[in-house]
Amino acid sequence: MMEPMPINFIEIESMKKFFYPESIVLVGASENKNKIGGKILNAIVSCGYNGTIYPVNNKREYVNDIKCYPDVTSVSKKIDLAIISVPAPLVLESISQCAECNIPYAIIISSGFSEAGNSGKNLQLELKNILRNHSMRISGPNAEGFYAANNNLVATFSPGIRIKNKNQEIKHVKINKSIGLISQSGGLGFSFYERGKLVNLDFNYIVSTGNQVDLEISDYADYMLGQDDTAALLMYVESFINPKRFVEIAKNALKSRKPIVMIKTGRTDVGTRAIASHTGAIASSSRIVDAVLEDCGVIQGYDQSELLDITAALTQNPTPNGTRVAVISASGGAAVWMSDALREEKYDLPILTKEHQNALSKFIPSFGSVINPIDTTAHMFGKGIADILEMVIQFDYIDAIVLAVSLANTQRLVNEGERIASLIRSVEKTILIYSYTVPSDESVQLLRSFGLYCFTSIRGCVISLNALRDYGKAYFFEKNNTKISSINSNTKSDSVSLIESSIKKIIPEFHSKKILRKYGISSVDEGIARNIQDARAIASQIGYPVVLKAHSSDLAHKSDAHAVILNINNDAELEASYKKIINNVKDFDPSLVIEEMLIQSMAGQGIEMIMGIQVDKDFGPIVMIGAGGIFAEVLEDVVLAPAPLSLEKGWELISRLKISKILSGVRGNPPADVEALVDAIVRFSILANDLHEVISEFDVNPVIVHPKGQGISIVDALCVKR
Amino acid sequence: MMEPMPINFIEIESMKKFFYPESIVLVGASENKNKIGGKILNAIVSCGYNGTIYPVNNKREYVNDIKCYPDVTSVSKKIDLAIISVPAPLVLESISQCAECNIPYAIIISSGFSEAGNSGKNLQLELKNILRNHSMRISGPNAEGFYAANNNLVATFSPGIRIKNKNQEIKHVKINKSIGLISQSGGLGFSFYERGKLVNLDFNYIVSTGNQVDLEISDYADYMLGQDDTAALLMYVESFINPKRFVEIAKNALKSRKPIVMIKTGRTDVGTRAIASHTGAIASSSRIVDAVLEDCGVIQGYDQSELLDITAALTQNPTPNGTRVAVISASGGAAVWMSDALREEKYDLPILTKEHQNALSKFIPSFGSVINPIDTTAHMFGKGIADILEMVIQFDYIDAIVLAVSLANTQRLVNEGERIASLIRSVEKTILIYSYTVPSDESVQLLRSFGLYCFTSIRGCVISLNALRDYGKAYFFEKNNTKISSINSNTKSDSVSLIESSIKKIIPEFHSKKILRKYGISSVDEGIARNIQDARAIASQIGYPVVLKAHSSDLAHKSDAHAVILNINNDAELEASYKKIINNVKDFDPSLVIEEMLIQSMAGQGIEMIMGIQVDKDFGPIVMIGAGGIFAEVLEDVVLAPAPLSLEKGWELISRLKISKILSGVRGNPPADVEALVDAIVRFSILANDLHEVISEFDVNPVIVHPKGQGISIVDALCVKR
Repeated sequence: MMEPMPINFIEIESMKKFFYPESIVLVGASENKNKIGGKILNAIVSCGYNGTIYPVNNKREYVNDIKCYPDVTSVSKKIDLAIISVPAPLVLESISQCAECNIPYAIIISSGFSEAGNSGKNLQLELKNILRNHSMRISGPNAEGFYAANNNLVATFSPGIRIKNKNQEIKHVKINKSIGLISQSGGLGFSFYERGKLVNLDFNYIVSTGNQVDLEISDYADYMLGQDDTAALLMYVESFINPKRFVEIAKNALKSRKPIVMIKTGRTDVGTRAIASHTGAIASSSRIVDAVLEDCGVIQGYDQSELLDITAALTQNPTPNGTRVAVISASGGAAVWMSDALREEKYDLPILTKEHQNALSKFIPSFGSVINPIDTTAHMFGKGIADILEMVIQFDYIDAIVLAVSLANTQRLVNEGERIASLIRSVEKTILIYSYTVPSDESVQLLRSFGLYCFTSIRGCVISLNALRDYGKAYFFEKNNTKISSINSNTKSDSVSLIESSIKKIIPEFHSKKILRKYGISSVDEGIARNIQDARAIASQIGYPVVLKAHSSDLAHKSDAHAVILNINNDAELEASYKKIINNVKDFDPSLVIEEMLIQSMAGQGIEMIMGIQVDKDFGPIVMIGAGGIFAEVLEDVVLAPAPLSLEKGWELISRLKISKILSGVRGNPPADVEALVDAIVRFSILANDLHEVISEFDVNPVIVHPKGQGISIVDALCVKR
Repeated sequence: MMEPMPINFIEIESMKKFFYPESIVLVGASENKNKIGGKILNAIVSCGYNGTIYPVNNKREYVNDIKCYPDVTSVSKKIDLAIISVPAPLVLESISQCAECNIPYAIIISSGFSEAGNSGKNLQLELKNILRNHSMRISGPNAEGFYAANNNLVATFSPGIRIKNKNQEIKHVKINKSIGLISQSGGLGFSFYERGKLVNLDFNYIVSTGNQVDLEISDYADYMLGQDDTAALLMYVESFINPKRFVEIAKNALKSRKPIVMIKTGRTDVGTRAIASHTGAIASSSRIVDAVLEDCGVIQGYDQSELLDITAALTQNPTPNGTRVAVISASGGAAVWMSDALREEKYDLPILTKEHQNALSKFIPSFGSVINPIDTTAHMFGKGIADILEMVIQFDYIDAIVLAVSLANTQRLVNEGERIASLIRSVEKTILIYSYTVPSDESVQLLRSFGLYCFTSIRGCVISLNALRDYGKAYFFEKNNTKISSINSNTKSDSVSLIESSIKKIIPEFHSKKILRKYGISSVDEGIARNIQDARAIASQIGYPVVLKAHSSDLAHKSDAHAVILNINNDAELEASYKKIINNVKDFDPSLVIEEMLIQSMAGQGIEMIMGIQVDKDFGPIVMIGAGGIFAEVLEDVVLAPAPLSLEKGWELISRLKISKILSGVRGNPPADVEALVDAIVRFSILANDLHEVISEFDVNPVIVHPKGQGISIVDALCVKR
């Protein structure tokens, strides 16, 4: 029997024909605007699509005065795109016909597939089978269609894009760059568009992906990011069909500085349950998803308006070079409020130098303030707030500026807007404009025509600054990527063989540490003994005090069996301990025979940390580092990142832990050897990357971090073979 | 020399004449609508004020066809309210005239007082001096005025209330209850109004307080809360003029279930600096303010739209009885997103019972979901989503419901809105309506006419649920207020004398613990020795092992001087330790003479905690409890509350600490004696309340919490006399 052919074996170079079809066949076309087929037809025609449309409806000769066909095959013309809106059981027949006619793209609007119980799931499988033998690409099923702005093509039944008449649709100020929108939920996708329109954001493409039987978010993302007029992507994602492909696309987007802003749902047990109930997909843990998305520069947000604010900020602003912000406000209250909000997010608001305060005082009345926040008082906006901005822009100790004004009165912006905008364009500094009053529509539009966005909430400003900071960071780590070069070229193959030669899944401590040593991660001195004589010899070589541990693949958690004895000071104690452990293990599990003992030197004082590797089914090897002991238990003070890590990222990860305060020395304790710890986590991440195909987990617990200059000790380690 | 009279010695019973004046004199009236005096006149006249207005302007006979007066005295009519809008230097003269004419209320709009440098500060002092001799009450200076909706009185120059023509202003659906708005920032106050109007919220009073030379937020709050049609207060506060009075008002508001929603700025060093620069006030730390506001049920919010959402929720909804939420959504995507957001805030979304799932299945198509979140699919809203709501409302394991629908299409709400509203009114459950699309204006208004609010963001829903939960909690603690009754009636007076008899500010450990013991807080066994013989006797009485500590008012931090030795096992060790401490202290500070030593029993094993009292200048005695040792240092794992605490509040505080996980037993460790800890913190809070006039601080560090049933040990304590 032959292997089934992979789905979509014929690569289609570009999705251009999907968004720019010269002809469309609409299966299920209707004159009734309450029906989906009627809504779509109306949307396509009335929004000014310039290509040819062939309605299919076997009950009519004409639909809205357009000649109608009984089925797809009878059209007999070159067709670029089929839109299918018939009941689910009739979809397969239509799709087969499309395939026969060599139509390259189809959108299945119809619901009743994998989201709808077993019969629907079967239907979706049959759909997949048809695709196996054809080069056709399918969007959906259960999709709401798409919108291609540059083509005036509104191929959706969503009321989100409200249709007035030809050429009148979507009349907002067009700036040179637009946002591509990809949503796994049709309703949310088009509501993003609506909300975006309210704040004058411009979209070039909107796609509702539906069940993604074939075309999936990465296909759309890849296409949109490749278009010159795409400044950023905004995405609603429930699950990744091809996570690694998406990561690759996102990394390329980061390199070309096209931000991707995303809400990835399924973050919690409940969200995951809800998604699984309609897609059957089990998602990776949100911590892993967060780590991976962060690593490739994807910015996540909390809700719709916040995501729009973030997207606007990322497309409009340079990323800040630091965290020093100046607030210039026309309201004392807004100045204080904004300053508090920024400060609580760890931004600095440096007090301006005396010289600069004096310079500003010439412009600002005595009942204002020139310290930072700068309170210009309400009267200045429209009458010279640009003078203030011009000065503050030049202060080299200010990385970002928030200009808080009232845009209720459009005249003020008319007076000063153009100058403010040109000042903003003149520098590589992050400058956000926030209106504490409800801005007039004219103000928002005018601002947009200057290429600027009007923030209307303090939260929006703060999270957007955060997003800019995080995006800047991701870009920095993408560019500054120092590797550790001192790892032998045969380390990987040696380690792989070592793991593959293990009969048992659990690689016990001594051998797990051997692998660590190959990667240059030092451990305590130790040796394996099969009897008390060996043990004594090893102990004398290491030097007392020593630790004695049972060593066996069958005993992963040694302390549960009381199979670890610390602080053994001499031969007599060693002998007694040896016997005691043998007995303890026997008590714990009579079937367990301990043939080996591990003797190791006592690790010196230090701070307890843990390191781990998890090989995620979606995203591959992920390394974890965190606080050990009670901190790990109570605080979940851990950070994750996909392997491998650069040295820069290693430092960053450690600095994010709460325990980093302790590592840097508090209460008179000496600072710990963070350099050695960073070196170890980076090496460990290389190990993760090298070995992720042969291991499933690797735990190092604890890692003792000694005072600065004294390195670290790996006290215990456990590798699990895949 | 006589003491100066207290300001405002004549109490005015009610502020009714302020908001409902029968006659107003406007000093600085103008025809020029670009001038403040012109704006105010225009606002008053055009908005339909029914009383008499007397413009004062010594350059004109008429202003806008209204007879004009050269000064206040020349009006010679009974006047209830004066509005002063002349340059600051001319204000005093006008105010003096108002006082002479026995005008009960004045608003000073003019800036140039305490917010404007030293000359302004002097002017404000002079203003205060005038007030000393008159019963007149003054609002401002530097105020934007007020709005009294029931009186159609728009006494402000703020453009926030946009004036069209008489009776046309403020045409939104009036529900039976309105919101009172008090703002220390005029610009923000009226912008709150504007933003509120956009979402159809109704305000009965708006006041911009200005510099609060006399009338302050508590005066306005007290009046507004006393009005039947006030459902809630919304406040922007920078600093409290009379913090204790505000707390009292807020507690009464909580009792009568009139929520107060507040943004209190000056939370950070920068915010405080900014406020101080224009009010000169130094605020209490935000942690203390947070604790006090929480205790009296004041709900704080992050930014304007969130505060409005919270205010709407608190005035519209009953507080939930628990954290179990059902999400009913017309969009699968919105269902997942909302569920994630709720779950991340620790809400439960129980899986519906099989029976209930089956019942719901009859209504919901197979491509929806009946588990929770309930995905009704998009087609149901407008055609029977009320049936779903009617069922879910009855599930006794659901405390709150979020109904996520699209309100872009008004017709759907027309179909079902009234029934949904009556279902919501029929139960004491928290039910929020959220539109994931941009709602139509008609939908928002229609919903409001049903007494319901349209949430437009996921964040808004989640924070509003949190606010309802927190408000419910505050109300619970207000009602459930179990006292500890076992404290002797003479404990307070005994303790006060003990403290007052101390010559030094620092009450050393042994005596501090004596006070604790009086309040029933047990300590370790201990005694004071003046020589080694005494020490030996005490040790033999307590029993070895013991701890030896130097004991002196001059040595607050004993460990810095190495003046503590633990684990002393016999007389010989005791003697050596005694000598060693004497020497250590001598090395530390040769001028220090140790005359006493403290001998105490070694405390058993347990979890280290700390307790403290801070007597705040604004809010009085505040107790603090937190994790001890390294946790305190790194995590700031502490909670604060004003003293005294009820037992219920004691339990609540401990449960909020991160370390509570450890207290309840983790990693096979036994659960700790939390009951004893709660008893101690409650007793400690009574001590705080009793003694706050004679102490400034009291630190108990550490408190060792032993395993359940074994109580706590106070190892060290230090009381500081005021």
